[in-house]
Order: sequence, then structure tokens, then C-alpha cells
Amino acid sequence: MRHFKITVAYDGTEFVGWQRQASGTSIQGLLEDALREIDGRSVTVTGAGRTDAGVHALGQVAAFTLERSIEPDVVTRALNARLPDAVRVLSTAVAAADFHPRFDARAKTYRYRLCVAPVLSPFERRYAWHVGALDVDAMRVAARCVEGRHDFAAFQSAGTEVATTERTIAASRITSEDAGLLAYEITGDGFLRHMVRSIVGTLVEIGRGRRPASWMDEVIASRDRGAAGPTAPAAGLFLMSVDYRGALADET
Amino acid sequence: MRHFKITVAYDGTEFVGWQRQASGTSIQGLLEDALREIDGRSVTVTGAGRTDAGVHALGQVAAFTLERSIEPDVVTRALNARLPDAVRVLSTAVAAADFHPRFDARAKTYRYRLCVAPVLSPFERRYAWHVGALDVDAMRVAARCVEGRHDFAAFQSAGTEVATTERTIAASRITSEDAGLLAYEITGDGFLRHMVRSIVGTLVEIGRGRRPASWMDEVIASRDRGAAGPTAPAAGLFLMSVDYRGALADET
Repeated sequence: MRHFKITVAYDGTEFVGWQRQASGTSIQGLLEDALREIDGRSVTVTGAGRTDAGVHALGQVAAFTLERSIEPDVVTRALNARLPDAVRVLSTAVAAADFHPRFDARAKTYRYRLCVAPVLSPFERRYAWHVGALDVDAMRVAARCVEGRHDFAAFQSAGTEVATTERTIAASRITSEDAGLLAYEITGDGFLRHMVRSIVGTLVEIGRGRRPASWMDEVIASRDRGAAGPTAPAAGLFLMSVDYRGALADET
Repeated sequence: MRHFKITVAYDGTEFVGWQRQASGTSIQGLLEDALREIDGRSVTVTGAGRTDAGVHALGQVAAFTLERSIEPDVVTRALNARLPDAVRVLSTAVAAADFHPRFDARAKTYRYRLCVAPVLSPFERRYAWHVGALDVDAMRVAARCVEGRHDFAAFQSAGTEVATTERTIAASRITSEDAGLLAYEITGDGFLRHMVRSIVGTLVEIGRGRRPASWMDEVIASRDRGAAGPTAPAAGLFLMSVDYRGALADET
């Protein structure tokens, strides 16, 4: 029995999300189906975070246990040989027997991509939200208000139950990519359901001049699910990385 | 009657190519169908170059004549409202009555993208050829051999008839994009069918160490269609821009 940690990238466009569902193709389901072939028995895959339908990942992390003795780089190749090319295992490492991708995560980083050009490039249509020209300075100020420890109840989807809605955000910044593309990047110790997309929807309201930059503080303070801006579309969101610091053996 | 020049970007993945075919969806066909709605009569669209099935464009140029009096920026919006989001008109300009996108073109620039990382990113699967590690220095030397005026018969697809197979290449260079991605960029006064993809196939043979850098000169000198490397896949190829210098009114 050997416990493995994998880092996975996927184009979420055509999937129902990370988590296995009653119908539709999920990333977790694809990995479990491939591992069943590899290990000759049913294997459960645990992810660091449940990305929603249409959300992408450059560095999702997952873990599972195999009975067969297989080297990590062979696991990578065997999985990629069985997965569609929209899902790729980037690396596999042997993990401690008690490693848990969600409970052991110290931080996660998400990026949200906004197209601010007049026309949305065909190459960005699945990977950015087309919003047109924005007041980037106001958004920069508002983005920084998210940093620190806050109760983020205002940014949580209705119908979810969690022990606490307090989270610590280490960084919340607007950065530029190419001409016509803005990126919003956020790093925190945990995220509520739809939290990043609700923060982005709030930032875009500010960027469009419908609300002042100070509105972000008001929304956070309200703890009211109706106070925030709309939930930004899934296509712009990327799970970039999950940070564990020192919890693992070296990657291969 | 007003003659227009448009600049068009498209993700070629799901199309049969630029040119209208008996079956399948073409970029030319989509534009002509949209313009028929806009002008209320049949409109012929002429392109600067016929990109093949699966080939992309960031700056394809096309021209057509409309009977209705419409401002250029209204043409852009009316076309984009009728086109699928994989095809976008970036700009429209009024052109001289005798402007011809192919005959008047002074130069075209193509980019070919190569993924040299061990694993192909899901986000590059439609936009790059996954070739693994390459000897980039050898490829840089070989790429420069393409520059100048040469008879490129060795890089022409079988079954095509053109008056001359001589072309002048102003630039032929290997550049890097992000980590794991190489780009090959070529600018010339004209290109034979499959010429860029055959040059790339030849460069990759050299990059893989199967042939020395000097092989490029030999292939060119041979003028033999069987001498070059394989034709690289369509997905990595982008028509970047078409240069006309001074032939046109200002873009809008």
C-alpha cells in the first residue's frame, strides 16, 4: 500500500466539475476510473478543493492509495495514457500515509481572468470573462480590502453549511497579463463556495463605476449574501496552486 | 457601393479552414452568410490567405463590397453579433475600390507553437504541437537558413500548381514563449501550400537530433518534395498578420 499525491491541470470547460456526480463527466470520476484500471480495484481520489463546472485548474492536488507497487513517474504516465487530453497529471509524489490534500493545505491560490478589450479573442472565450473597459485603479484599491482575516459570509453561496465563514486572505491583487487582459489573484487559507467568483463580481461592479471602491469593505462588513455583486462566470476561474510546505516527500 | 477590409481572428479547431467547402463550416462561409443578412443580398468575401482546417488566425485579412451604406464600426458589431464566438472581427476599415487582400499583400507572418515540456498542458492541446525536448540551438541555426530568396519546391504539398515556387523570406526565427513553449515565426512575401508546416516538420527533425542543422540547406537545394521533414500538425499554426503598408484608409 502506497499513498500518492498528484498535481493535476485541467480545462474545466466540458466537465461537471471536480466532484463525481450522478451524471456528466467529473475530474474525480475520470481519475478514479483510470486508477481502477491501473490498480485492478476500486480507488478513491480525494482533492484539495472542489472546483465547480467550467472552472479550470493549473495545480489542483489530489491523493489516493494504491495496492500495487508502482513508481511515481509510472503513475503519471499510466494516468495520462488513460485520461482525455483536457486533463493532465503534471507530477506524482509518494506522500505520507496520513496526507490529506484538503485538511493539510496551508493555502490555495486562485486566478480570475478578465478580458477588458472591446472584442473577446476567440482564444480567450473559454478562459476569461469579457467585461470591457474597467476602472482598474478603483479595483486595485477594493481588491486589497479583501486581505486579512474576515467573515466572508457575504460571499458564500446560499444553501451551504460550514462551521465558520471566517477565512484569512494573504493576498488579493489585480495584475495585468497581456494587453486587454486583467488577472485577479487571491491566496487564502480556505474559500467558501463561490467566494472567489462573488468577490470578482463585486470587483467588476466597482470597476464599471456602479459602486465606489469603498463598497468592498461595506459588503464584507454586511455578512449579507444579498449585498455582494453577481457571481462571475466559471470560465474565468483557475485553481493555480495548493501550498503544503514541508508536508511531503519530493515531487518527481 | 463601399469596399471594406476586415481583420479577423479565429480558433480554427472546429472549422474546415478559411475556404468555403462542399460540406463543413468554413470561416469564409460564416462571413458570407452573416454579410448576406447584413446587406440583404449575396456577398463574396476574399481572404488574404487560405488557412487549412485546424489552422488559427490572429490577423487574417479579408475584403468585400456592400451595397448598403454602413459605417465600419457598425460592420464590426453586426458581423460579431452573427458569428460564433470562435470567429471575431477585430476591426473594419473602408478600403480603396481595387483593394485585394491577397494580391496587395506585401508580407504575411505565421507563428508555429511547439510544446517542449514533458506533459502537454490541457490549455495548449489545440494550439501547439507536443514534441518534447529539442536542441533549440540547432533549430535556431537551421531556421535562419530559410531566410532570403529561395525556390521552396521541397516544402510544397503535392498536387498544387503555382506559377513559381520561389519566395522571399524576410525573417525565420525560433523564439521562446513561456516555459515549455517554443515559437517559430516566419515572415515572407508569399507561402506555398503547407510550406510553413513542412519547414516546421524539418526543424523538428533537426531539433530531435535526427538530422544536423545543415540539413535545412540541403532540403531547400533539393527542390524535392520527398526530401523535407513531415508536415507539422495544423493545430500549432497561426496566421499572425498581413502587411499592406499604405494601401489602405485608417482602421477603425
